[in-house]
Amino acid sequence: MSRYDTVTFLSDYGRVDEFVGVVHSVIRSIAPHAGIIDLTHDVAPYDVRAAGLVLARSAQYLCPGVVLAVVDPGVGTDRRPIAVEVGGGQSVLVGPDNGVLAPAVAMVGGASRAVVLDDEQFHLPSPGPTFAGRDVFAPVVGNLCAGTPFEALGTAIDPLSLRPALMNLSRIEGDGVEGEVLWEDRYGNLQLNIDPDDVEAYGERITVRLGDRIRMARRVRTYAEIRTGELGLVVDSYGMLALVADRASAAGELRIGAGDPVRLESAPDDNGADGVTVAVELGTRRQP
Amino acid sequence: MSRYDTVTFLSDYGRVDEFVGVVHSVIRSIAPHAGIIDLTHDVAPYDVRAAGLVLARSAQYLCPGVVLAVVDPGVGTDRRPIAVEVGGGQSVLVGPDNGVLAPAVAMVGGASRAVVLDDEQFHLPSPGPTFAGRDVFAPVVGNLCAGTPFEALGTAIDPLSLRPALMNLSRIEGDGVEGEVLWEDRYGNLQLNIDPDDVEAYGERITVRLGDRIRMARRVRTYAEIRTGELGLVVDSYGMLALVADRASAAGELRIGAGDPVRLESAPDDNGADGVTVAVELGTRRQP
Amino acid sequence: MSRYDTVTFLSDYGRVDEFVGVVHSVIRSIAPHAGIIDLTHDVAPYDVRAAGLVLARSAQYLCPGVVLAVVDPGVGTDRRPIAVEVGGGQSVLVGPDNGVLAPAVAMVGGASRAVVLDDEQFHLPSPGPTFAGRDVFAPVVGNLCAGTPFEALGTAIDPLSLRPALMNLSRIEGDGVEGEVLWEDRYGNLQLNIDPDDVEAYGERITVRLGDRIRMARRVRTYAEIRTGELGLVVDSYGMLALVADRASAAGELRIGAGDPVRLESAPDDNGADGVTVAVELGTRRQP
Repeated sequence: MSRYDTVTFLSDYGRVDEFVGVVHSVIRSIAPHAGIIDLTHDVAPYDVRAAGLVLARSAQYLCPGVVLAVVDPGVGTDRRPIAVEVGGGQSVLVGPDNGVLAPAVAMVGGASRAVVLDDEQFHLPSPGPTFAGRDVFAPVVGNLCAGTPFEALGTAIDPLSLRPALMNLSRIEGDGVEGEVLWEDRYGNLQLNIDPDDVEAYGERITVRLGDRIRMARRVRTYAEIRTGELGLVVDSYGMLALVADRASAAGELRIGAGDPVRLESAPDDNGADGVTVAVELGTRRQP
Repeated sequence: MSRYDTVTFLSDYGRVDEFVGVVHSVIRSIAPHAGIIDLTHDVAPYDVRAAGLVLARSAQYLCPGVVLAVVDPGVGTDRRPIAVEVGGGQSVLVGPDNGVLAPAVAMVGGASRAVVLDDEQFHLPSPGPTFAGRDVFAPVVGNLCAGTPFEALGTAIDPLSLRPALMNLSRIEGDGVEGEVLWEDRYGNLQLNIDPDDVEAYGERITVRLGDRIRMARRVRTYAEIRTGELGLVVDSYGMLALVADRASAAGELRIGAGDPVRLESAPDDNGADGVTVAVELGTRRQP
Repeated sequence: MSRYDTVTFLSDYGRVDEFVGVVHSVIRSIAPHAGIIDLTHDVAPYDVRAAGLVLARSAQYLCPGVVLAVVDPGVGTDRRPIAVEVGGGQSVLVGPDNGVLAPAVAMVGGASRAVVLDDEQFHLPSPGPTFAGRDVFAPVVGNLCAGTPFEALGTAIDPLSLRPALMNLSRIEGDGVEGEVLWEDRYGNLQLNIDPDDVEAYGERITVRLGDRIRMARRVRTYAEIRTGELGLVVDSYGMLALVADRASAAGELRIGAGDPVRLESAPDDNGADGVTVAVELGTRRQP
């Protein structure tokens, strides 16, 4: 009768407070057989977009089961707590209806069913209105794992009524492609929202425009091909283009991060200009 | 014969060193059936009071089992390592006898039995005197989970001899109530040691005195009711009063944190004075 | 047929990105029975030496099973991904062949067998070349736990061909012993690469030379014996010498950390000089 035995848990709770542990405990008290995988809890507070991207990058690697995503700036308002069934019931995503689940739902082929979590028999009584992770989402996840049918959790809603994620798309503009940084990872690699195919015709050397600044990047297959001080452009382990440095932070070097605009262009033939540009930029960077 | 199958683990070990993982490994090597929930390990080093509050806030949500709390500035002195039985044996709390367990023990109705962990057959041999988490507490917890009877762990002691936690109580003083900040959470919300009942008669608007500074707060039911730049006073998800801002850090705004004094008073009827006060305070705050 | 049921996992992935959670998920999808212990993921990026020391300190306390260590600055180069069998098959260490596994392998008596992980049937297909943790190491670990024989994972190699760790040894030099800081822990304790036996003859008071600076330390058995402001030298919980302060950071006080040189000498009989030295040092320290 146990429907799910893996919970994947993502939030902006951080690890300093006990929020994550308490959610684990509530789930385990209802569904002791379920294993809980912490995807990350260090999404920046309230950053729904970043959390949605974490789920989208991870989706194809996650164990089937329940995915709990709690990044919830609208807690206590009329935003709906929801559960979304995907893969014909193979997995259920649980969280606020604020777009955080949308990219992952799209990645796995869309929702088959959705409910608002309004049946309070599956919630904990709360002394206050503000800890939905503990009082609504955790007990719902525990009950799902323990065999409560999806449709029992609350009122069915049209999956098409769910709030979409707002993601900027890259676009071809003149002789280049304009996009933005999707993600700056631990190592300072900068994943872009630009498809490798869009720069396929550009050759090995690429002009990178960051607002008024210009840098040169070289297309490489691995980090190790990048020379010291050089900027590389790789197809990263998610199949997206990324600006990278060799054992150094491209984000730190370029002083940009998630959300910043990036324009890629085919580099001019004149190799001399490229060397000069890099030199100037490095000089600027080293000033305080 | 297995007595407990959940361990809840709290410490000030941080996650950078391998301390937490090693304690997990020692427990698992003795009790492979037990699941371990990390409540948090980012209590500030040696902050016994903060760790006690984490346990007290969490107590009613924790799975029955063993609770291990290691915040231990006196390791190596004559402070006693102890185990405390609560709920008629439903749970056992393990840690140093320095007050860290006391608030949680009180929350769940007091101790039925207590022992000093002085039977060394349940400890690991140690090359040095300083890692009690690994060499004393973890093997004791593992043995408890594996079925070792509570009374076998060491010499029985009177639960009344356990070191209490020292918590400041709020008090009615003149026409206000004086308390302090118990906890600044990840989002900058400031939980106070003041009961909502104590300000019940104060009406919607509350004067907040922080030493010489005065701010106005408005009682709200949810974060979303707070206007931008406004300070809210909510009953938080633990049933305590908390100073909060909407999607912003009240702690950052007010420049206070755990332990700082707060006095709440009924606001004067003169609404004009309140507006002026807020304006001045906001101006001050924005200066470097 | 399940060979291993515990995975101990160490990396420099940090906990902000979802890398750790994705590796957990890939392992669990292949070997749902296996428990995964996170040793730490906050090794400084690319710090192979620090990760090797973490494993060496932990080795004797780890559950038998698979140990996965991913600190991999050479990912994408010709560094080999390997598995190393130790203890006659009791445990297998998996990671890059860059020295990160070597100290732990040595601690447990050396390798009995080793393979290069070149059989791609045990890997995930990857859209890019850079996430070996997810695409190579995690599925190999999952398969090992699920019963895949060690020798099936790839081409056998001579354990003697594995890359060693480069660790500096302490040495007796004149009337002292010269070493370095191995590890600065969460509390600011400074573990040295100096054996307690090497200073056995030095008596209670020890001269500590840090480049041009001189400090006095006192040999103590526990932290609590250290007086406020005093520097202590203890045999730590790993059996190594460590410079420590009482409820304070020796690292912060001395302004040194991992890799910095330390020379210990027997202190002169003249006690007066010692007091003066300390006073000057304290004064210096408090200046900005």
